[in-house]
Amino acid sequence: MAKVAIVYHSGFGHTKVLAEAVAKGAASVAGTQVDLVPVEDAAAKAATLDAADAIIFGSPTYMGNVSGPFKTWADTTAKTWFGQGWKDKLAAGFTNSSGPSGDKFNTLVTMWTLAMQHSMIWVSQGLMVGSKEGDLTLNRLSAYGGTMATSENAAPGENNPSKDDQASGAALGRRVAEFAKKLKG
Amino acid sequence: MAKVAIVYHSGFGHTKVLAEAVAKGAASVAGTQVDLVPVEDAAAKAATLDAADAIIFGSPTYMGNVSGPFKTWADTTAKTWFGQGWKDKLAAGFTNSSGPSGDKFNTLVTMWTLAMQHSMIWVSQGLMVGSKEGDLTLNRLSAYGGTMATSENAAPGENNPSKDDQASGAALGRRVAEFAKKLKG
Amino acid sequence: MAKVAIVYHSGFGHTKVLAEAVAKGAASVAGTQVDLVPVEDAAAKAATLDAADAIIFGSPTYMGNVSGPFKTWADTTAKTWFGQGWKDKLAAGFTNSSGPSGDKFNTLVTMWTLAMQHSMIWVSQGLMVGSKEGDLTLNRLSAYGGTMATSENAAPGENNPSKDDQASGAALGRRVAEFAKKLKG
Amino acid sequence: MAKVAIVYHSGFGHTKVLAEAVAKGAASVAGTQVDLVPVEDAAAKAATLDAADAIIFGSPTYMGNVSGPFKTWADTTAKTWFGQGWKDKLAAGFTNSSGPSGDKFNTLVTMWTLAMQHSMIWVSQGLMVGSKEGDLTLNRLSAYGGTMATSENAAPGENNPSKDDQASGAALGRRVAEFAKKLKG
Repeated sequence: MAKVAIVYHSGFGHTKVLAEAVAKGAASVAGTQVDLVPVEDAAAKAATLDAADAIIFGSPTYMGNVSGPFKTWADTTAKTWFGQGWKDKLAAGFTNSSGPSGDKFNTLVTMWTLAMQHSMIWVSQGLMVGSKEGDLTLNRLSAYGGTMATSENAAPGENNPSKDDQASGAALGRRVAEFAKKLKG
Repeated sequence: MAKVAIVYHSGFGHTKVLAEAVAKGAASVAGTQVDLVPVEDAAAKAATLDAADAIIFGSPTYMGNVSGPFKTWADTTAKTWFGQGWKDKLAAGFTNSSGPSGDKFNTLVTMWTLAMQHSMIWVSQGLMVGSKEGDLTLNRLSAYGGTMATSENAAPGENNPSKDDQASGAALGRRVAEFAKKLKG
Repeated sequence: MAKVAIVYHSGFGHTKVLAEAVAKGAASVAGTQVDLVPVEDAAAKAATLDAADAIIFGSPTYMGNVSGPFKTWADTTAKTWFGQGWKDKLAAGFTNSSGPSGDKFNTLVTMWTLAMQHSMIWVSQGLMVGSKEGDLTLNRLSAYGGTMATSENAAPGENNPSKDDQASGAALGRRVAEFAKKLKG
Repeated sequence: MAKVAIVYHSGFGHTKVLAEAVAKGAASVAGTQVDLVPVEDAAAKAATLDAADAIIFGSPTYMGNVSGPFKTWADTTAKTWFGQGWKDKLAAGFTNSSGPSGDKFNTLVTMWTLAMQHSMIWVSQGLMVGSKEGDLTLNRLSAYGGTMATSENAAPGENNPSKDDQASGAALGRRVAEFAKKLKG
């Protein structure tokens, strides 16, 4: 049983839609336990994160980087870092904002840097730009370090972010779960 | 008379189209001398770069960063760096690739880092995403650190990269020239 | 009269020592008004920031990036960003942590990205590694995009961060104030 | 038998010393085949890279990023990228320059970005700052995304870069080889 935890912040619900898509992708791999952990609950669910084989980070991109609540949570992991409690776990990341580029690359670099300090192993998106999955177009935005999505300035929902971008997130979740399974042997 | 030099590499001609748009934008500011310097000629035109008030860097994004020829040229500036010959000059950057994000942010960070080592002053794009200029839509890709353009996998030309993206580049050139003028007093 | 505002977060006081050094450097330029604004007061002092010719960002590096409180404040500038209220202002940055590299470069990139979204102009450190100023060694850590300092895991004080690193910060403050003066004409 | 390839550029020999330390570390893991590939030979040894389970990238940091020859080689991998020939391989990176920080973080981000485009999995340094190994001090520079070393402006040799920094590189090689073995099952 490989355990994948997804720790994310969502300001208005769009990143939550993406987080749920990532979770669905991870859960589609047989023998995977998936936990969705909003950063607001991360302190209470520290044991869930500590027990995970893989931790996937999610945040909107605000002002060119992860959100304040995500970073504030990341800072609380300093104790775990000091004891290297997450060493050798897998890591990956996803982010959402309104513009095509936005500086979302920078958000992924921030998540990667956090993972590196924790001595984790970083899993790439693993999709070429514009990969097809049935009718869906994955990795529309040509992102490689993790999943990038865009959402409209409207209520979050099953099409916001788009089904395409949700599918990119699902592919990331699946990929991480598969590697977690492989590493567990 | 403020002097703006544009030093760029173009593999297939698309970045050259963008470089020419940047040059046109800079030249539209009264009292500006503009020099377009392909990296292949940069050694021969070192005096032009050294005399400039502003140097704008341009490169395609290949494999997530500036091109090999651009970086090879950048390395040759180490001597100038050692004497801090470009200190206090203005700098800015532009890049082109096929995908919307494609890690072009990383290319701009690389150019910024080069400028920082040279103790230069970095000028931002200065446009909100989707700014209108007549019929044109500037900064389609939501880039702030410099100009990002995309081009089709077809011959470069007056619409490849698009007129929209050329206009973003022209706005960057104009902005740099205006600051250069202001700083010359 | 050029106005330089320094907006910073300090968790344990070390970054505050550095912020005060930056302020002293800026104040050493005749005709400069300097305001030190802890992020905790930034909401109340929004008018001070809006009126500044230059805003210098300061934060400790926690887990490879700006601190949670700094990022939380940065997110609140989204309204100003939307109206591009800080367009054309100067910007610069400084950071402190315990290790020599520690991913402080990433913190400066984050500050730069914030400045770029605000359409600001970024001022480099402007010092070669190991520059001498009397007995002091400036830019010990070979940082170019801004000031990097280290502090010991002990109470902050006049030698923690070191006088060397404080002098690097003072040089940054002075440099920003000089450019602010020049641009005001 | 897990195969680890180390592809690197060395301008003056210092990065070569580090590359050899990384190789020694990888070779210390039983059942590992290690290939050291200077970028000058990378075209001729493309089959070696294609057959590897892990590819470790090495470059000096010149002007704040990988060297021109390293980037020029990286560009030649675009064909492999197009066919995603390195998908799911492990990746890691190391770099050397004269200064403590020197923007070496940026070099590691560049290598990570290259790995991400190739859909690889990135292995962290896995060492806390100042870790002890006998008399040696590993990860002196507090680098987490890969190995950072410094060298003196003198001939490369068994103490240049220092034995400390060589040991950090050896630890990276060992770590990558161990993960490669684990993933091979």
